Amino acid sequence: MSTESRIPLFIPEVAAPAAGDRKLGSARLTRVSSADRWLLRAFLRAMGSPAVRVVLWNGESVCAAGAPAAAAVQVPDRRTLLRLMSHPELAFGEAYTDGRLRVDGDLVELLEALYRVPVSPWAERLLRRPPRPHANTLRGSRHNIHRHYDLGNDFYRLWLDARLVYTCAYFPTPAVSLEDAQLAKMEHVCRKVGLQAGERVVEAGCGWGALALYMARQHGVSVRAFNISTEQIAYARAQAQKEGLAGRVEFIEDDYRNVSGQYDAFVSVGMLEHVGMDHYRDLGRVIDRCLPAHGRGFLHTIGRNRPLAFNAWTEKYIFPGAYPPTLREMMDVLEPYSFSVLDVENLRLHYATTLRHWLARFERASDRVASMFDDRFVRAWRLYLAGSVAAFSTGSLQLFQVSFARPLHNAIPWTRAHLYQ
Amino acid sequence: MSTESRIPLFIPEVAAPAAGDRKLGSARLTRVSSADRWLLRAFLRAMGSPAVRVVLWNGESVCAAGAPAAAAVQVPDRRTLLRLMSHPELAFGEAYTDGRLRVDGDLVELLEALYRVPVSPWAERLLRRPPRPHANTLRGSRHNIHRHYDLGNDFYRLWLDARLVYTCAYFPTPAVSLEDAQLAKMEHVCRKVGLQAGERVVEAGCGWGALALYMARQHGVSVRAFNISTEQIAYARAQAQKEGLAGRVEFIEDDYRNVSGQYDAFVSVGMLEHVGMDHYRDLGRVIDRCLPAHGRGFLHTIGRNRPLAFNAWTEKYIFPGAYPPTLREMMDVLEPYSFSVLDVENLRLHYATTLRHWLARFERASDRVASMFDDRFVRAWRLYLAGSVAAFSTGSLQLFQVSFARPLHNAIPWTRAHLYQ
Repeated sequence: MSTESRIPLFIPEVAAPAAGDRKLGSARLTRVSSADRWLLRAFLRAMGSPAVRVVLWNGESVCAAGAPAAAAVQVPDRRTLLRLMSHPELAFGEAYTDGRLRVDGDLVELLEALYRVPVSPWAERLLRRPPRPHANTLRGSRHNIHRHYDLGNDFYRLWLDARLVYTCAYFPTPAVSLEDAQLAKMEHVCRKVGLQAGERVVEAGCGWGALALYMARQHGVSVRAFNISTEQIAYARAQAQKEGLAGRVEFIEDDYRNVSGQYDAFVSVGMLEHVGMDHYRDLGRVIDRCLPAHGRGFLHTIGRNRPLAFNAWTEKYIFPGAYPPTLREMMDVLEPYSFSVLDVENLRLHYATTLRHWLARFERASDRVASMFDDRFVRAWRLYLAGSVAAFSTGSLQLFQVSFARPLHNAIPWTRAHLYQ
Repeated sequence: MSTESRIPLFIPEVAAPAAGDRKLGSARLTRVSSADRWLLRAFLRAMGSPAVRVVLWNGESVCAAGAPAAAAVQVPDRRTLLRLMSHPELAFGEAYTDGRLRVDGDLVELLEALYRVPVSPWAERLLRRPPRPHANTLRGSRHNIHRHYDLGNDFYRLWLDARLVYTCAYFPTPAVSLEDAQLAKMEHVCRKVGLQAGERVVEAGCGWGALALYMARQHGVSVRAFNISTEQIAYARAQAQKEGLAGRVEFIEDDYRNVSGQYDAFVSVGMLEHVGMDHYRDLGRVIDRCLPAHGRGFLHTIGRNRPLAFNAWTEKYIFPGAYPPTLREMMDVLEPYSFSVLDVENLRLHYATTLRHWLARFERASDRVASMFDDRFVRAWRLYLAGSVAAFSTGSLQLFQVSFARPLHNAIPWTRAHLYQ
């Protein structure tokens, strides 16, 4: 579409170092002063003394903790160091994307080391500082979603599973393959929602349509699935045709706020992250409007233990407008309409595992990705995937699955044993 | 203890009708005016037009709904009618307790009919009106707990299970006996907490000690269990001696705010209702203080879908100081300390079933109860138990079990399948 195609899909170059920083080898530029060291040590302490090593531009190492460092960050110049200390997340991401800042050792381990330690209140203010400018109005959401999900289905095909499921999988055991784990996730969701053949389901934010097609195929329901990503909807429609399910699964290119009609179940997997806190009541109103007295609902989202925006770099370059809610914040969707929360499951370790699969596939396809985009894009997405592994494995991010129903609906499952049979 | 023994344990008589209302048969008093009828109909509409019949003092019936009435409320005089319309919950409970207001038909069905319909905003303001005067300070909590839990172990023995478990049971299937369901509940809790032999557990609000003893006996842990009910602690200590567990289970007559030491797990079943919203952060601080990096926690509480105090009569006569939180409100305990919610299960239908067992046993023992207290006490407790059945069966009250852990603790169960094996 004409308005969206003007939005840049690539990672723009920012804060490129002054030419002199690397090219001139003058003593003034390469010298590491005692002020540099003092500042860096104070900064590392404020960051919770993570088990990382910082290698400065003269080759000198600075460590915060006594513990052995997982990996090392190579800081190329004073300008990068100062920017890291004033906008840690943004500067790290930008310098890493540009290739100016390099990591020696395992990137996931480095990021885990950073996430594992509690930062000081001062550093927390620093980390929370950047405002989020990406409003999730009807128009803003289209822009935000287009930036991430319309990078091309060929790109996502390189590293997602065969069905292009781009949300946390469910591994009955950790060794299960990614393909099987995505199937198991879809079945887990269907059981939680208690789908019965012949029922009508609405799905808000359906990605490439895998869950909608699974529900129709395996559970005999009819589905109306909404999404504002042009490329995803086109793919999903073609898939429905191919599988002979076009009569029972309708893919609609529209915003969740425009969902109409009544359904037996409301399902949303991986959309709430993109709704934004300001619009939780809108979403609640939509769910309230479309569920009758026996209606059930299901929300699956990345979340937090305490209120905190996404990493500033992620929000700026990867997921504009996104926000991971706490369980308390999620209740802004459900509480105003008296929905009854029946079940909450936190699958954060499953998301860490899912992301490890994605990262490994992405690395194997990195040459193809570089030829589709460029090396800066490869580095940005490597950082995003590695950072996500680290965030879930250290409990900085959570994955909440919330099942709910109308308060008077008593035909709810007696126990949860049926999820495990 | 001297200060507590002065607290009245019985239901005080209130709002006795003027002698003339029933004794004088004058036309002025027994006549039902068109204003009475008009007011009552308007009131019933505001209450959501419940499927109940109101029989007035002249024998005339007034119904709100077209639907057949579940049961009838006999209103003895105009004064009671007017009081019902200005303080519905309080007046109903008081007049029922006094024996002035009678119910024809099944009390649970009548109350379910009342709970099942949505009240008007005006009626909701009326229902929310009474302030709650029972502060949960250290001293206030002792008073509040004493009023309910120190009614005498002999009384509770008449209608609870053999182990005196006075919280929602867990019925693997609805037909399981109450005794087995309480055992199943204790096992369910232990599995959710992931107890390992040799671990140390702290329990806040331990009732008569059944869970603490179960954890030590069946899972080989040592337990420090806190409670401010004198009678319950005395019973629990005797029980620990009898079972030879006194060396591993320590029952402490003290407030949860005074819990000290470090433990592998924090468990609290049926205490949060008595903590009061003002003190959720205190409770969170206690949990934060006593759990190390691998610590796990568990909270089991009566709750709501949206913020609403207990029924005014219940709060005044049955559970002074109690409040059933929403899931959002519960997060005030956990979110400030970054606890990671792993699992929430809503067992409201299990509590309705538990309460039906208690009510049936209570009815069978009602003559004994009357001889221990009086008929007013029997009616008050009948109303409390029947009202609780109705509240849980209609989704007015919820039962939340919330499992949580420290954010960095990765030795959490991979799935929840182990709860169902």
